[in-house]
Amino acid sequence: MSSGGSDTFRLEAFADAVFAIAITLLVIEIHSPSAKDVGEFGSLWKALAHLWPSYLAYLISFVVIGIMWANHHNLMKLIDRVDHGFITLTLLLLLCVAFLPFPTAVMAEHLTDPMERAAAVAFYCGCFAVTAFFYFLMWWHAARGRRLIAPHVPDDAVQAITRAYAPGSLLYLTATLMAFVHVAISLTIVAGLAILYMLPKAGAHAAITKRS
Amino acid sequence: MSSGGSDTFRLEAFADAVFAIAITLLVIEIHSPSAKDVGEFGSLWKALAHLWPSYLAYLISFVVIGIMWANHHNLMKLIDRVDHGFITLTLLLLLCVAFLPFPTAVMAEHLTDPMERAAAVAFYCGCFAVTAFFYFLMWWHAARGRRLIAPHVPDDAVQAITRAYAPGSLLYLTATLMAFVHVAISLTIVAGLAILYMLPKAGAHAAITKRS
Amino acid sequence: MSSGGSDTFRLEAFADAVFAIAITLLVIEIHSPSAKDVGEFGSLWKALAHLWPSYLAYLISFVVIGIMWANHHNLMKLIDRVDHGFITLTLLLLLCVAFLPFPTAVMAEHLTDPMERAAAVAFYCGCFAVTAFFYFLMWWHAARGRRLIAPHVPDDAVQAITRAYAPGSLLYLTATLMAFVHVAISLTIVAGLAILYMLPKAGAHAAITKRS
Amino acid sequence: MSSGGSDTFRLEAFADAVFAIAITLLVIEIHSPSAKDVGEFGSLWKALAHLWPSYLAYLISFVVIGIMWANHHNLMKLIDRVDHGFITLTLLLLLCVAFLPFPTAVMAEHLTDPMERAAAVAFYCGCFAVTAFFYFLMWWHAARGRRLIAPHVPDDAVQAITRAYAPGSLLYLTATLMAFVHVAISLTIVAGLAILYMLPKAGAHAAITKRS
Repeated sequence: MSSGGSDTFRLEAFADAVFAIAITLLVIEIHSPSAKDVGEFGSLWKALAHLWPSYLAYLISFVVIGIMWANHHNLMKLIDRVDHGFITLTLLLLLCVAFLPFPTAVMAEHLTDPMERAAAVAFYCGCFAVTAFFYFLMWWHAARGRRLIAPHVPDDAVQAITRAYAPGSLLYLTATLMAFVHVAISLTIVAGLAILYMLPKAGAHAAITKRS
Repeated sequence: MSSGGSDTFRLEAFADAVFAIAITLLVIEIHSPSAKDVGEFGSLWKALAHLWPSYLAYLISFVVIGIMWANHHNLMKLIDRVDHGFITLTLLLLLCVAFLPFPTAVMAEHLTDPMERAAAVAFYCGCFAVTAFFYFLMWWHAARGRRLIAPHVPDDAVQAITRAYAPGSLLYLTATLMAFVHVAISLTIVAGLAILYMLPKAGAHAAITKRS
Repeated sequence: MSSGGSDTFRLEAFADAVFAIAITLLVIEIHSPSAKDVGEFGSLWKALAHLWPSYLAYLISFVVIGIMWANHHNLMKLIDRVDHGFITLTLLLLLCVAFLPFPTAVMAEHLTDPMERAAAVAFYCGCFAVTAFFYFLMWWHAARGRRLIAPHVPDDAVQAITRAYAPGSLLYLTATLMAFVHVAISLTIVAGLAILYMLPKAGAHAAITKRS
Repeated sequence: MSSGGSDTFRLEAFADAVFAIAITLLVIEIHSPSAKDVGEFGSLWKALAHLWPSYLAYLISFVVIGIMWANHHNLMKLIDRVDHGFITLTLLLLLCVAFLPFPTAVMAEHLTDPMERAAAVAFYCGCFAVTAFFYFLMWWHAARGRRLIAPHVPDDAVQAITRAYAPGSLLYLTATLMAFVHVAISLTIVAGLAILYMLPKAGAHAAITKRS
């Protein structure tokens, strides 16, 4: 049990580090405009303004990863030991999270290309969908039959989290498909989800934090 | 309460990680002179000397982020629990901090361009102003009505911090506007603020550390 | 003893940080396709698909480093103090781990070049072989005569780990040599090893986790 | 006192993070040979071999930063509180440490240029000299009159560290000047210092670790 506690602590610390590094690496995909860019756009202000898809992509990805970190921390508080499957699924989740700077850069680079913006946004949202899927899988492994849940956690707290996480992956999948209708719909869904999670006492998330 | 303590610890550890990563990523925006650069400038020493805006930008940004880290740590010692709003505002602060390597690179690249140096320095100082604004907002959320302040902290310690942080954002805003008069004024304000905070027992900061 | 415990904790925390940073830096070697790449390949989807060696390299390296982290953590639980040699060998192991993003990038860049793919994969697997060798050396230093092993750890647990780690370096060496026959054999060996270690209760690893 | 202990812990954790990130960022200055490089050098192996100055620079910088981390940890064990000056000097030390990936890249890029290799190596060793100087300054601030030293630490342990650190900066300065005679002398001094520190029970370092 004490050893299980040490494993849980160490796994959460490792996950925290990967979340923190991935979230901070997002910025290195935003490249300072060169003197040549400034010449092309007429001024530095215009060249900086032209980078708006990079700022938008940074903003959305930062908030999405930040919320995943906060939720992961709330989730780990309900768990009092980890097993081999949970460690493996956490590593697969982190594999997705650490990958997110790449779709962020792809989305930023091609959002203003009328021919490719649908593909860029679909790829971006698709990566969020896969990440959310592994997130749910990790939780489901811990929660099924209360396998790794601490005894003091009431059943309805576990069910509240399951209900809160289950639609995440599907909503991101919807955003992925909507990119082929209009990218603004996709980005509105993703941004809306982020704002919903950030609002205090908003739906399922409130239920989670209230209990923790 | 114990859960609140764990949340506070985890939030501070996450913030510390983002501060540490952002501060260490600053250097990757300084690019080694290529053989071609060396040929152009006549020698490696001259090519290295030519990078002085990058060193200056690195120095200022490192010290500013370092001081924010130290102050954030002092601030967290007065807080004994976190709520949803505080976590959200901390994430928004970290969103600004993690973004700072980008304006640092922009400032370094365009500081020697007579046409664009005002814009580059204004953008740089403007990002500090926004960061300081979210910093103050985060503190104000915790301090208003002593919402998250630990019981043992005296009222005047809280007010001393409020007085110390309130002008930060305005001073950076002044530096932003002064860039259009002369960039040296802006950088002097920013560097002066940094030195003021680093001096032992200098004004408000001393009050904070004395109490902690 | 208490000082030894603090050293052990600090060394593991430092190693954890290097593992986490190296694993998260892997992604920055995957570069977003430029508008020019998209033009060349016909569409963004095709340009993204063309990057499959980067995804494969990311996947393999992430899982290999992730497993090393998990094993390192299990190993450290058996150790109750560290000495100068162990710290030095751990730093040499971390020197190898932190280097892995480079062979990952080399492998990804040249895997589709028929002339150079053997060299690229041999270099990639060779770096894993050297890393596994230092990993074993570090363990062997701790385990020989139970030099740094905690008293409560049974002898057969120590021997089980020695048996589990000993073949790692040789298997990676085999993968290195097999690259000159066919790169698919090399990558199958490396991926197979990773899957074997990730399977629950698979051979020696199960023995380790069962005991810890 | 308890607050002082928390500050000491937090400062060491922050320093550890910067050491770990700086050490792991070294690798991103080593760029995978492109298909064009391979064509130029005749084969991937030759292109990889041609990068030997990058490997050498990585190796030396990694070991130097790794030893600084280990020594910093040993040093912090003798200290039981931190003051404003110590925090400031630690931040200045970290400013130097986080900068080291840049001179590492400069040295690697220009080591094989007969005209510029002296400048490249002098710059590289000069950065180590400045870093070692701030390291000593930080220690001297803590040790002078035992200002921040824990009561249980004997005087001769403090003096042993002072004697051990004092020559570091001067030896790196010697290496800097020797670059203008022959770069091999400089690199031999730096590598020799590193090996000396890594050897168990070698001179002053042994005295430090023995006591801790």
